[in-house]
Amino acid sequence: MTDPSHWLPLCAANIQAAHARIRPYIHTTPVLTCRTLNRLASTPQSTDTPSEAPPANPKINLFFKCENLQRIGAFKARGAFHALVRLVECYGVDEVRRRGVVTHSSGNHAQALALAASSFAVPAHIVMPRISAPAKIAATTKAHPGVRVVFSGSTSHEREDVVRRVIAETGAILVPPYDHPDVILGQGTVAMELEQQVRELVRADAGLSVHADAGADGGVLDAVITPVGGGGLNAGVATWFAEEEEERGGSVGKRGKRGKVRVFGAEPAWQGADDCRRGLAAGERITAVSSLTVADGLRTPVGEIPWSVISDAEKVRGVYAVTEAQIVAAMRLVLERMKVVVEPSAVVGLAVVLFNEEFRALVEREGGEDGWNVGVVLTGGNTSVEAIGALFAS
Amino acid sequence: MTDPSHWLPLCAANIQAAHARIRPYIHTTPVLTCRTLNRLASTPQSTDTPSEAPPANPKINLFFKCENLQRIGAFKARGAFHALVRLVECYGVDEVRRRGVVTHSSGNHAQALALAASSFAVPAHIVMPRISAPAKIAATTKAHPGVRVVFSGSTSHEREDVVRRVIAETGAILVPPYDHPDVILGQGTVAMELEQQVRELVRADAGLSVHADAGADGGVLDAVITPVGGGGLNAGVATWFAEEEEERGGSVGKRGKRGKVRVFGAEPAWQGADDCRRGLAAGERITAVSSLTVADGLRTPVGEIPWSVISDAEKVRGVYAVTEAQIVAAMRLVLERMKVVVEPSAVVGLAVVLFNEEFRALVEREGGEDGWNVGVVLTGGNTSVEAIGALFAS
Repeated sequence: MTDPSHWLPLCAANIQAAHARIRPYIHTTPVLTCRTLNRLASTPQSTDTPSEAPPANPKINLFFKCENLQRIGAFKARGAFHALVRLVECYGVDEVRRRGVVTHSSGNHAQALALAASSFAVPAHIVMPRISAPAKIAATTKAHPGVRVVFSGSTSHEREDVVRRVIAETGAILVPPYDHPDVILGQGTVAMELEQQVRELVRADAGLSVHADAGADGGVLDAVITPVGGGGLNAGVATWFAEEEEERGGSVGKRGKRGKVRVFGAEPAWQGADDCRRGLAAGERITAVSSLTVADGLRTPVGEIPWSVISDAEKVRGVYAVTEAQIVAAMRLVLERMKVVVEPSAVVGLAVVLFNEEFRALVEREGGEDGWNVGVVLTGGNTSVEAIGALFAS
Repeated sequence: MTDPSHWLPLCAANIQAAHARIRPYIHTTPVLTCRTLNRLASTPQSTDTPSEAPPANPKINLFFKCENLQRIGAFKARGAFHALVRLVECYGVDEVRRRGVVTHSSGNHAQALALAASSFAVPAHIVMPRISAPAKIAATTKAHPGVRVVFSGSTSHEREDVVRRVIAETGAILVPPYDHPDVILGQGTVAMELEQQVRELVRADAGLSVHADAGADGGVLDAVITPVGGGGLNAGVATWFAEEEEERGGSVGKRGKRGKVRVFGAEPAWQGADDCRRGLAAGERITAVSSLTVADGLRTPVGEIPWSVISDAEKVRGVYAVTEAQIVAAMRLVLERMKVVVEPSAVVGLAVVLFNEEFRALVEREGGEDGWNVGVVLTGGNTSVEAIGALFAS
């Protein structure tokens, strides 16, 4: 990555600049709505604990930002392309092509970096555990010329050792999956698009039963929720909404009296994968996670730079956790009702909105009669029909 | 349905009028593109018969009209809403509410009619085989007030007997799934939207490698392919494209020298479900089909009025058939690569484009160096995660 002398501050203006940089390479993914899911979200859920207070009864309108329809099937394309364009800006394309790039991901970030690097004719070294699925290895190497898979052991130490060896041998530049300002600013472009698209949707479609009390030019989102793995996406989204619209320039209109858009994070509770939520409660970042949650994109601890944003209560209102069963239930609803394919990690935000009583009580309390318009980022759709079959067979 | 004295001619102007009628009730579904599928479609397929001619090598750009994202998850909402609005126009809302509507479908048309009827506070009687899945019965009755499921035996004769009884007892008006002009005109609105959306996509996105030789205002589609079950959709689409754009009014621009958009049909070959294709070859409509093709929406023979359009070679260029394995392979590609959920019936058109060598040779021959821009209607997405699992486990 670019070294700290080139680091850009995390602010909305730099997200706008990032969007201008990556726009030729990414899709402006659609924002979908679904009446059935609005109705479900606005219906009290039966809870397992009848002795406690009755379940919350919030009013919620959902706006789904479909990053599963992004290139390579996940929002990671945004951060990877932004990182590449910035490297080329800072060091020149010749040096970047000579050195190449390297990462140690076997997931969506690897695919994203392979695509971005090959788009700029930059060699890419993708360090993957030797036990990775052959289909995944083939997909990484076959789709993108100039991409080399380097095998490692499975632990993060073994993988980092191989990365260091690749860097020593080739001079390749490390592009980490989340812990870098360029990546965070790239992911933040999701929020910029979402805000604008929701405004256009509400203006165009009188059939939506949203409230839009800020007037024709005002923002209409009350909240946005994203999954938190390494935290790059959540930190980017929170960076966008941390500033009032006026501060981001008049072109996007006035928010009026409605105040900032609240940003929330969502994590799986299973085997402690809710490290960010627990870290916030303890006042200290948790740096190691060992969870086999079905939401396999969210098994990593939150990174240092994302944490500096997410742990700022002015920027992120809270992080909530859900069970494995709730994630699977949310995934079924998105597949069967919305008709889009998502991976389990993608629906953890929706699962919080539908099933987390603490979050739902907050919406009921603060949203009142009007309710909230909630943006939900569906982060990715990289799964297989066999994986879908296995998930719902068990 | 309206009786023949109220029947509207099948022409583009009446599809425009149908669109104006149903627009408040339906979604303008998105048109998606997918580079991976374009690449696959434009790559020769390995055939099982190496002794024959080498596989065709057409150049194809695909534009997917996502009716799986339509209300109730299928294009059938268009025809059903158009039928209801026309009934109300012709007979008055009081009489339609007094009499109610009836149909004998257990599939997407039943859901569509239930939604349309309940939107107008019209009672609906849905005749379903007693052996229908309880979840399907519950979905039909629970989602829409005023809808009554009436059970019948499983054969078409038994179902029609029950329909006749319902009509005798209640005066309900039959809304057939495809064999009526109002339904065909409603389904034809798919073509009207698709043509306009593809033009806008090509204009907006320089990243599409389509050819657009008719100039800035010209049409850019060379062909459209849809599945053929009862034939309502295919006949509606063919009705729209049967006329030169000039005849449909100047508002949609000039096609220039490119001529008409070719319309094709697609069917499963399994157990003779390709009745329309066989009927065209024999010069006579086939009126009975008994197939258990995985594309369960296409198990019906083509209807009489759709046949009058589809059998006109000026309107439909040809109907092609594919195997069960080809349908399943196309479904996997749409789920895994495009990330949208489709039912097997929805991808039969795509399967023809990818795998039918006769069709592909035609594109190679007529499309030449430029290739064809092909609109593919993904007709519906009503399936379950369990059904997806079962389909790909076997």
